[in-house]
Amino acid sequence: MIEDKNQQSTQLSDLGEFALIEHLTKNFKIKHKSTIKGIGDDAAVLEVKNNKIVVTTDLLVEGVHFDLSYMPLKHLGYKAVIVNLSDVFAMNAMATQITVSIAVSNRFPLEALEDLYAGIDTAANIYNVDVIGGDTTSSTKGLLISVTAIGEVENNDEVYRNGAKPNDLLVVSGDLGAAYMGLQVLEREKEVYKVNPNNQPDLEPYSYIIERQLKPEARKDIVKLLSDMNLKPSSMIDISDGLSSEIIHICKQSKVGCDLYEEKIPLDPQVISTCEEFNIDSTTVALNGGEDYELLFTISQEDYPKIKANPNFSIIGHIKEESAGIHLITRAETKIPIKAQGWKNFNA
Amino acid sequence: MIEDKNQQSTQLSDLGEFALIEHLTKNFKIKHKSTIKGIGDDAAVLEVKNNKIVVTTDLLVEGVHFDLSYMPLKHLGYKAVIVNLSDVFAMNAMATQITVSIAVSNRFPLEALEDLYAGIDTAANIYNVDVIGGDTTSSTKGLLISVTAIGEVENNDEVYRNGAKPNDLLVVSGDLGAAYMGLQVLEREKEVYKVNPNNQPDLEPYSYIIERQLKPEARKDIVKLLSDMNLKPSSMIDISDGLSSEIIHICKQSKVGCDLYEEKIPLDPQVISTCEEFNIDSTTVALNGGEDYELLFTISQEDYPKIKANPNFSIIGHIKEESAGIHLITRAETKIPIKAQGWKNFNA
Repeated sequence: MIEDKNQQSTQLSDLGEFALIEHLTKNFKIKHKSTIKGIGDDAAVLEVKNNKIVVTTDLLVEGVHFDLSYMPLKHLGYKAVIVNLSDVFAMNAMATQITVSIAVSNRFPLEALEDLYAGIDTAANIYNVDVIGGDTTSSTKGLLISVTAIGEVENNDEVYRNGAKPNDLLVVSGDLGAAYMGLQVLEREKEVYKVNPNNQPDLEPYSYIIERQLKPEARKDIVKLLSDMNLKPSSMIDISDGLSSEIIHICKQSKVGCDLYEEKIPLDPQVISTCEEFNIDSTTVALNGGEDYELLFTISQEDYPKIKANPNFSIIGHIKEESAGIHLITRAETKIPIKAQGWKNFNA
Repeated sequence: MIEDKNQQSTQLSDLGEFALIEHLTKNFKIKHKSTIKGIGDDAAVLEVKNNKIVVTTDLLVEGVHFDLSYMPLKHLGYKAVIVNLSDVFAMNAMATQITVSIAVSNRFPLEALEDLYAGIDTAANIYNVDVIGGDTTSSTKGLLISVTAIGEVENNDEVYRNGAKPNDLLVVSGDLGAAYMGLQVLEREKEVYKVNPNNQPDLEPYSYIIERQLKPEARKDIVKLLSDMNLKPSSMIDISDGLSSEIIHICKQSKVGCDLYEEKIPLDPQVISTCEEFNIDSTTVALNGGEDYELLFTISQEDYPKIKANPNFSIIGHIKEESAGIHLITRAETKIPIKAQGWKNFNA
C-alpha cells in the first residue's frame, strides 16, 4: 500500500488519516468470538454472553511517562498495552479487546508508527487481545498514547479493591522495585551519552531491571493460576504507582489497617546490588518506585495452604482493623506509618 | 475538599492525581443498572445481558481540534462527549457509558478542569450515560481529551457502514455545513479581536451556526425515532468529516455507487447567508465542512413512505451499482465525481 522508495522517512502528511489507520492495523487479527466487528466502522461491536465486562483506560505522554531517547517505539507500544492489561488482570478478569489512540507530531515518520504498532501487535498476540478500534491524530508536540482495555470475568469472580478483611494475608506476585531501578540506570546512561556519545555502556549487569522498565509484563499468568488453585482473593490491585500507594488504596477502600513486613518484600538480587551502587534504600524503592505491574492481593487465612509454597507469591503483610492504621514493620522491628507519596507528575 | 481561598487559581500541582480525579468526578452519578462499578477501582465493571455492546474512541487535541481562545472549556467537555456518542448512535445503538482521560499542562488551574468536567457531566446527564473511568495526567503542552464511549444495541439491530444496496435511498438528518461556517465566523472574530480587543462583535446573526460549532448535539433522537418507526437503515454513519467523506465510506464498504443531488442537500438559511457573506460555495461547505454530527443512512425504497413527510430527514441521493461510481448531480444537472478531501490535520 505504501510505495515510497525511501522507506526510512515517509511523512505522515503524505497519507490521509484513513490510509494511515488502515496501513498500521492491516495485519491485526481478530481472535475472540466476542469481537463481532473490530476496526472499520463508527464503533466496534462486541457480544458478551453471561460474563461481566471490565473497562479501563490509561494515557501515556511523551516527556511525562516515557522518554524516547532510551525507550524504543516498539517497546513503548508493547508497554502501553501492558499497563492497561495489568488493570484488567487486577480485576481477576481476562483481557479480550483494546482500543489504541495516538496523537503524534509531524516529526515522526510513518516507519516510527509502524514500530509502535508492531509493539502493540506483539502484546496483543502474546496476551490474546483484539485491537478493535482507535483514533490517530496529529499533535502539536510529541507523542501521546491512549489505550482502553476491555476484559471479561465470570459473574461474581471479579475482585475489587474494597474486599480486604482483618486477619487476611497481604500477598504480592513477583518482585518489586526493578522497573524503577532500571529507569535509574537508563537515566544515568543517557547523561553519560550526552557527555560522550561514543561510550559503549555495559548494561549486562542490569539486564533484568532494564527489561522490567522497557518491556514489563502483566500478570495474566497469576489470574490463571489463582483460578486453577480455586483461590479468589478478597481484594486485588495492580502495582503501578508503588507498593505503598496500592496498600493505601486497598486499606482505605476496604476500611482496614495493615502491617507490612519489610523483611518479606521480594527483591531481585539485581535490584539489591543496583540500589547499593546508587546508594538508594531498596525498601524505599520497592515502596515508592512503581511500574512493577505485579498483583497485590489479600486472601483469607484459610487459603494460606494454597499459596504458602508457591514461588510466584510472597506473603508480605497482615490486614488489621482500620483503627490499627497502616504501618511498615522494619527489620529492626520499628513501626513506621506508610504514607502516600502522592503523584508527582504535576510537579513539573 | 479544596479549601484554597483563591478559588480562581488552584494549581494542579497542589493536588495529587487521586485527589484530582476524586474532586472532578465526585458529583457524577451512576444511572445505568449495567454499570456495576464506575470510577474508583482498577477497572469499571459492566453487566450487559442479551444486548450487543458497541465501543468507540476519539481524541481531541488542543491546537488541532479546538482553539481555547473561542471554545469555552465547559463547551469543550460537552463536545468531547458528543463526538463519541455520535459514533455510538451511528451504530443504531444507545450510549450507556463513557470513560474520559485528559492530559493537561500546568498552565490550567483546577478551576479550568472543573469547567471542563462540568461540560462532561452536563452531556452525560442529558444523554443519560455513566462516566465510569478515565485517567488524568500532565502534558508537556496543551490539553488533550480522550473519550471512549460504550453503548448497547439489541441483537441484530446494529447498523454497519457496509449494508447499502443498489436502489436504496440516501437519507440525512438535520442540516449540513453549519458547524464549519460557525468556525469561519469564530476564526474571523478572533482575528478582529487581535487587532481591536475592545471590539464587541454582534454574533446574533450567526447564533445557530456558532452553536453548531461550539455546542453540537448527537442525534440520539434519530435513533429513537427510527426505532419507533420500526425502520432499520441498511447502512449508517455519522457525519464528522464531511458528507462527501462519509458517502465514500458507505459506498466503498457496501461496494455500491451513489448519485447525490445537490438541490436536496439540507442547508439552514444562516449557512446560506453566511456562505454568501464569506463568498464560499455552500455545497462545498456541506460536502467537506464536517463536524455536523448528523446521521447519514440508507434505507430500502419500501421504507420510503415511513420517512417521506418527516421534517427530520432529507432524502439526498440514490444508491447505485458500484460500477456507476459516486457522483454529485449538480443543480445544473452536470455529474461530478465525489472525491475524498482526505484529512488535513497532518498537513501542518
